[in-house]
Amino acid sequence: MPELNKALLEKASKENIELVSARYEKQQPQCLWGLNGTCCKNCFQGPCRIIPGKAEKGICGAGADLIVARNFLRSVAAGTTGHTDHAKEIALALLEIAEGRTHDYGIADAAKLKNLAGKLGIKTSKPAKKIAKEVALEALGDFRRQQGLFLKPEGKYLNWLRIHATKERIEKWKKLNILPVNADAETSHALNQTTMGCDADPADIMIDALRVALADGYSGLAMASDLQDVVFGSPRITKSTCNLGVLDEGKVNIIVHGHVPLLGIKVVEFARKLEAQAKKAGARGINVVGMCCSGHEALERQGIPVAGHMLQQELAIVTGAADAIAVDMQCIFPALQDVAQCYHTKLITTMDFVKIPGAKHIPFTVHSANKSAKKIVMEAIEAYKKRDPAKVFIPKEKNELYAGFGVESLINALAKVNAANPLKPLVDALKSGDIYGIAAIAGCRNLKVKGNFHEELTKILLKNNVLVIGTGCWAHAAAQAGLMNEGSVKYAGAKLRNVLKAIGNSNGLSTLPACLHFGSCVDNSRISALLEMVSEKTKIPIYKLPIAGSAPEYATEKALAIGTFFLALGITLHVNPIPEVTGSKLISKILTQDLEKITGARVLLAETPEKAAGAMLQAIRQKRQELDWR
Amino acid sequence: MPELNKALLEKASKENIELVSARYEKQQPQCLWGLNGTCCKNCFQGPCRIIPGKAEKGICGAGADLIVARNFLRSVAAGTTGHTDHAKEIALALLEIAEGRTHDYGIADAAKLKNLAGKLGIKTSKPAKKIAKEVALEALGDFRRQQGLFLKPEGKYLNWLRIHATKERIEKWKKLNILPVNADAETSHALNQTTMGCDADPADIMIDALRVALADGYSGLAMASDLQDVVFGSPRITKSTCNLGVLDEGKVNIIVHGHVPLLGIKVVEFARKLEAQAKKAGARGINVVGMCCSGHEALERQGIPVAGHMLQQELAIVTGAADAIAVDMQCIFPALQDVAQCYHTKLITTMDFVKIPGAKHIPFTVHSANKSAKKIVMEAIEAYKKRDPAKVFIPKEKNELYAGFGVESLINALAKVNAANPLKPLVDALKSGDIYGIAAIAGCRNLKVKGNFHEELTKILLKNNVLVIGTGCWAHAAAQAGLMNEGSVKYAGAKLRNVLKAIGNSNGLSTLPACLHFGSCVDNSRISALLEMVSEKTKIPIYKLPIAGSAPEYATEKALAIGTFFLALGITLHVNPIPEVTGSKLISKILTQDLEKITGARVLLAETPEKAAGAMLQAIRQKRQELDWR
Repeated sequence: MPELNKALLEKASKENIELVSARYEKQQPQCLWGLNGTCCKNCFQGPCRIIPGKAEKGICGAGADLIVARNFLRSVAAGTTGHTDHAKEIALALLEIAEGRTHDYGIADAAKLKNLAGKLGIKTSKPAKKIAKEVALEALGDFRRQQGLFLKPEGKYLNWLRIHATKERIEKWKKLNILPVNADAETSHALNQTTMGCDADPADIMIDALRVALADGYSGLAMASDLQDVVFGSPRITKSTCNLGVLDEGKVNIIVHGHVPLLGIKVVEFARKLEAQAKKAGARGINVVGMCCSGHEALERQGIPVAGHMLQQELAIVTGAADAIAVDMQCIFPALQDVAQCYHTKLITTMDFVKIPGAKHIPFTVHSANKSAKKIVMEAIEAYKKRDPAKVFIPKEKNELYAGFGVESLINALAKVNAANPLKPLVDALKSGDIYGIAAIAGCRNLKVKGNFHEELTKILLKNNVLVIGTGCWAHAAAQAGLMNEGSVKYAGAKLRNVLKAIGNSNGLSTLPACLHFGSCVDNSRISALLEMVSEKTKIPIYKLPIAGSAPEYATEKALAIGTFFLALGITLHVNPIPEVTGSKLISKILTQDLEKITGARVLLAETPEKAAGAMLQAIRQKRQELDWR
Repeated sequence: MPELNKALLEKASKENIELVSARYEKQQPQCLWGLNGTCCKNCFQGPCRIIPGKAEKGICGAGADLIVARNFLRSVAAGTTGHTDHAKEIALALLEIAEGRTHDYGIADAAKLKNLAGKLGIKTSKPAKKIAKEVALEALGDFRRQQGLFLKPEGKYLNWLRIHATKERIEKWKKLNILPVNADAETSHALNQTTMGCDADPADIMIDALRVALADGYSGLAMASDLQDVVFGSPRITKSTCNLGVLDEGKVNIIVHGHVPLLGIKVVEFARKLEAQAKKAGARGINVVGMCCSGHEALERQGIPVAGHMLQQELAIVTGAADAIAVDMQCIFPALQDVAQCYHTKLITTMDFVKIPGAKHIPFTVHSANKSAKKIVMEAIEAYKKRDPAKVFIPKEKNELYAGFGVESLINALAKVNAANPLKPLVDALKSGDIYGIAAIAGCRNLKVKGNFHEELTKILLKNNVLVIGTGCWAHAAAQAGLMNEGSVKYAGAKLRNVLKAIGNSNGLSTLPACLHFGSCVDNSRISALLEMVSEKTKIPIYKLPIAGSAPEYATEKALAIGTFFLALGITLHVNPIPEVTGSKLISKILTQDLEKITGARVLLAETPEKAAGAMLQAIRQKRQELDWR
């Protein structure tokens, strides 16, 4: 089990509070059909499950390969909607801002807006709001483009794919007939395709999962990051603190949790504005900290501390010092309210489609943002008054971290080394082997995993001079393990350490941290954007570059969508736990072998950090050997 | 088990061919968690299952209520995409026709087109193709309307809902905040809503299932039926034959199977054109028959015979006389190819996203329809040459049926009774009790059901003077049981019989059949349209009218979507098998009790035809008692 927080686990145990780890234990043993992917619930003649030797086929005749493939596609589609809904939300917010229907938000990064507009073919010689409107409409176009079963309009596909993907990939995806046309239509269609009596070709379904994943990568991840940068500002390299010790006993503690920065950014703003109210209530002030990806979003833009990853969300309440938790969507354990009700903590839901029975619901939209944020902060102050000091225990664990990396901030940092050609130092280091390869690590924490997979894997890669960049719960784990502060370079191999120090020195730091915090889960688009940039610069397709990915503790459907997107991009990807495909030899083979002939990438399986690092290093080594840098 | 065909089952058994019933037996016992709805596979920390007393919560903290609700919504969403994809396909076909990009199809019912245009607010004083273009764009608008998590554009919702739903319902749905805005966005969003850590409010999720079901009912079912009527012609009351005996030993037999009439209609056309080729091959001609809903679509418009329902699809091959089966999408057992390869039968898939390994794939789009249909018929003729006479056994079962009922054809028939006020005879009969109530029966056949539920339930209702109208596999079952020919009125109670005879006589028939074939599954929209018309006419909301529905053998996710749509409409609905919600007392109570206070309808559970009829009659009786006809 990954490390959560020993002292708080003990406190919870003493206080008789059931946490995720206990629920996990009670769920053991988990259903083998669920785990190997051969359970089908796609019709009510079923459920069916494949029992080799006894029941090789479901009632309709679907075998293991088909059932596994259908389940895979449905999971990718579900995960994709998490990101495409998110991106759509921000695109609509931008439209509301541009058309003056809300003044609670503005345009924070006009340069990024112009840059996007330019790529989209929009003239930029007009006021920012007019540009913003056109950009928003192009974004929303990715949810409105006409598409149908027999109609794949020639040459028409997602705008956000067009402006980001490399030419090489677009050609490849065109040949595979997987260029997505309309993000919502792709995910909806995946449901039809996988319903009883539709597609019966497992290989076909897996290829179509790539199409859905491209919708995830571009009109989900990339669109969300891009437009959030426009509205809230692009990330800047910033120093902050992490882990549950960031809660402050003397202050009103508000935790923002979820994924969409519309909420968190406003809570931070109003917390500052309402300090006096908090002081009136006897506190030293207000301390807003982040949880999960909402945390990263506010961290990379406003530098707020991050309290923890998805498996620590309940523990934040167990401190007895969390006065309010304001949530938007995704990765919010329904159990939060069960835990919150044992304390004074106010759990506040904000989105109409994400409610938790027992929690306080304060509707939060772009139109009511200021008003709602004020209400949320006031709720926290009220709750603070009811805090029971006897129940408070804030653990000492707290660490420094650098965050805010991404294409823009990294290029800025590299420009201090080579102003004329900022990517050159990075590419040169890759060529020379000073950076042996790049590892992109993403995704959740998962109780199925033994020990601290994220941390151990990262350390081995660093030692082998692999530049590690990553997002999401990995970033929480790495930061908590001290892998993102200045001292962390001790974990890097000598060659990598020199590179990090050189770039750091040019930027007034003793060094860059050993691994780079690339942001939230949607910010996996910052990873793909960087790799796309390196690919365009070197004219070498991503799949030939010394790159490997890992999702060593993935847990959500969203993570599966991101992983599949990485595979479509050409990033060979380690995943753990073993995906729910082992019931099908065909699908297992497609993912771990055949896919390499299709997209240039394949899945690596390994259940220990050592083996995972070994497989990733081997993949990188092979790429280096076969590589002609030109 | 419902009756399939004893002789063919024996033949299959002798020939060592595994059929659906054997696969069903091998799947016993089915997973109890799947059956009661408390299995959750929505993240990879799981799968989880609720074990009362041991594991009351999933790992994230989701309890039985939440897991059941999420599974319910996902199934409704998946089912909905089956119909919305279908409708979109036809809307796009209409656009291609209107803009002259295909000449393989035309506009068969210009009057219906004008009628739709009028409802949509489109001027009708222009050439049909110009009207068609605008109608098609309004239809496609239901998949393109801007929508978002915080943006429910005031007063903007599905065009197809606007032109069909009663004012009373629209007001009701507005109050419930469930007017759907964009069909694809609703189904995609349902996936996000049900992913780990999003909505944790089971009751909320059930209400949102109603919204998705409204997208199903209007921009799925109704749009598909409407636009198919425009392109292929509206159904006319027609006499034909049914059951597996419709196959003709002396002819080339082609079975059209699936759901979208684009294919079937063309196969019928080219079968007629290529008769000479078939004769050259030694056959007496070509016999095109339908299977499942593709059958109904061609039957109600072209009068072709229908061979059977979803559980008989394999048996059609076992006759040894099926030369080709051309399929489009949905309810096509993957097992078909396993059976086909034991005979000379050519299984032909036609849609890019529905392939079956081993089957011949002939891509069929509106642009290639004539060419592809010709190829398909020629494939059948070639296959006929390889037919093994020793393997041929066509059962004697064959029955006459009347089909082609729907709003237009029924109003036409009623107009012969009262030209000035065609609905009056129907409403008067309802008022007087000559028609005690209307029962709408829909949906699949299901091996879980004991005996012939469809047939037995129908007979009891008829005997009690309930007018039975229905669709889909029910229609196959009822027709095969002799409930749709002129002789069938013997099953009707005396009062109902007189009504049926009177209407029949006015139309040159001895009688209408005892129950009315309202078409395919998407033609459930014809049922809702009729009830909406009666409701508008009488100014009595549907939920107060003496109406009850039943899906006595539902099996597909599509059926669940249709059933939920009926519940949103206000039609109290018997369902069987018992839905996968029994693991949650809350959700069971919502469906069987609370929903009545919300939409006016509720779910009736009954596992025998007698009990089901009893519950439906009781519901009708209560409505009659409470009804003020004005």
